[in-house]
Amino acid sequence: MAQKTALIIYAHQNPASFNAAARDVAVQALTKQGYKVLVSDLYAMNFKASATAEDVKGDLKNPEHFIYNDEMMVAWQNGRLSDDIAEEHRKLEQAELVIFQFPLYWFSVPAILKGWIDRVLTQGFAFTMQKLYDNGVFKNKKAMLSFTTGAIESMFKPDGIHGDINIVLWPLQNGVLRFCGFQVLAPQIFWCPAHSPPEVRSAMLEAWQERMNGIFAEKPLSYAPTKYFDLSFQGGFCLRPEIKEEYASESHGITTAQHLGKLLPPDNQTKAK
Amino acid sequence: MAQKTALIIYAHQNPASFNAAARDVAVQALTKQGYKVLVSDLYAMNFKASATAEDVKGDLKNPEHFIYNDEMMVAWQNGRLSDDIAEEHRKLEQAELVIFQFPLYWFSVPAILKGWIDRVLTQGFAFTMQKLYDNGVFKNKKAMLSFTTGAIESMFKPDGIHGDINIVLWPLQNGVLRFCGFQVLAPQIFWCPAHSPPEVRSAMLEAWQERMNGIFAEKPLSYAPTKYFDLSFQGGFCLRPEIKEEYASESHGITTAQHLGKLLPPDNQTKAK
Repeated sequence: MAQKTALIIYAHQNPASFNAAARDVAVQALTKQGYKVLVSDLYAMNFKASATAEDVKGDLKNPEHFIYNDEMMVAWQNGRLSDDIAEEHRKLEQAELVIFQFPLYWFSVPAILKGWIDRVLTQGFAFTMQKLYDNGVFKNKKAMLSFTTGAIESMFKPDGIHGDINIVLWPLQNGVLRFCGFQVLAPQIFWCPAHSPPEVRSAMLEAWQERMNGIFAEKPLSYAPTKYFDLSFQGGFCLRPEIKEEYASESHGITTAQHLGKLLPPDNQTKAK
Repeated sequence: MAQKTALIIYAHQNPASFNAAARDVAVQALTKQGYKVLVSDLYAMNFKASATAEDVKGDLKNPEHFIYNDEMMVAWQNGRLSDDIAEEHRKLEQAELVIFQFPLYWFSVPAILKGWIDRVLTQGFAFTMQKLYDNGVFKNKKAMLSFTTGAIESMFKPDGIHGDINIVLWPLQNGVLRFCGFQVLAPQIFWCPAHSPPEVRSAMLEAWQERMNGIFAEKPLSYAPTKYFDLSFQGGFCLRPEIKEEYASESHGITTAQHLGKLLPPDNQTKAK
């Protein structure tokens, strides 16, 4: 039987950074649990971020009307993706757990990591129009965001100046991870390590190590189940009328805010348990 | 007196794309209104997306503990930013209006455009800890997102499978544009042009042209005013208690959801007026 495998997508320029230390903690904790740990060190790999025609080997299907996603789907079907993308596919296929380790840049992932998302999560390989969300390709895998911030925690509270961190993470956690079917584990957020004293930084890493030791026992975040939605053009890919009715007594019905909030137990949102 | 200037940051690989047509419509409409229009065609420029030490000319301040943001701030102060970034700064300084034209990739901007955001919006130049949001550096400039989707509109309704488009755009519109002080104009969303018949695509471009003809008369989106927040570490950069009290009668008080919703007139969110 193949060894159990985890994958860390790591995006920091500096091998002496807090992000590197967080990556090392995860590698060690997973190795101790018998996992083979693959690391994609994006800056060290000089990972190409931009989605271009060079990502396809050989002729394009429709060079006059180049649409990246369409070309990549065909290239995947024909085994003509660029080597760096094919290599990331092989890593992803093996991995039971994927951890994205990065510093938050502009309320999102750094561009080099967005490039990994844009280029590696190829239609056909990572999703199809039939295999999405609860029915997604990676529904037997787990994934999580682990990141450092420049901001302090209260800035990202619902009444904080930057807005609710759950809203900030929605495009990544729902739009990328859950979209491909991943069971999304609660994000690991290291608040402002750059301006924290050494003992606070150490304590953050110790808490992370402790969390990693029990990571496979964690329950993923809850979202509105995909079966609540009518996945047809007639139904507009919206909530089924009977589900709407069931939730009508609540102040706003069931909406994105409830994907984010009311359907989640409060302790199941941004904190590691 | 210098000519009035607009800047379009354009991110599509294909000069025959719908995005290119949308860009051209904007260029023509702005030119007709007497504007000089600068275009940063990111793929054609082979714009570097990844944030690396090469973005600084000469010695780093702290190579052992490389922190991109800190190094860039110092390099900006000393005139030692890489030429491509300095050039984008010069364009931004001139521009009264900035339009980001792109296809939505994974609920956000393509990596090459995220790279523009990560690399060009340098601390010191685009924001400081004192100059944020309503007090932001670019408070006399306007900015907007103009993008195509693969999804149909109903998928991004509050009860749609992908969640409310206002939530999806929050990290970009609030976290990037408003953070730097820009007055954020309503996004221009072209729903699924790739799967629309030619007459629908033409109608979309005509509506865009009409909107562009009156773009400088548009009122920007409303957000919770920055003065509602206590911008101090003691206050946690959260809503002032007296403001919370004023809004306490509303179901959830004033929170991010209300940044997004209740404080905005409903017609002032995703639609062009």
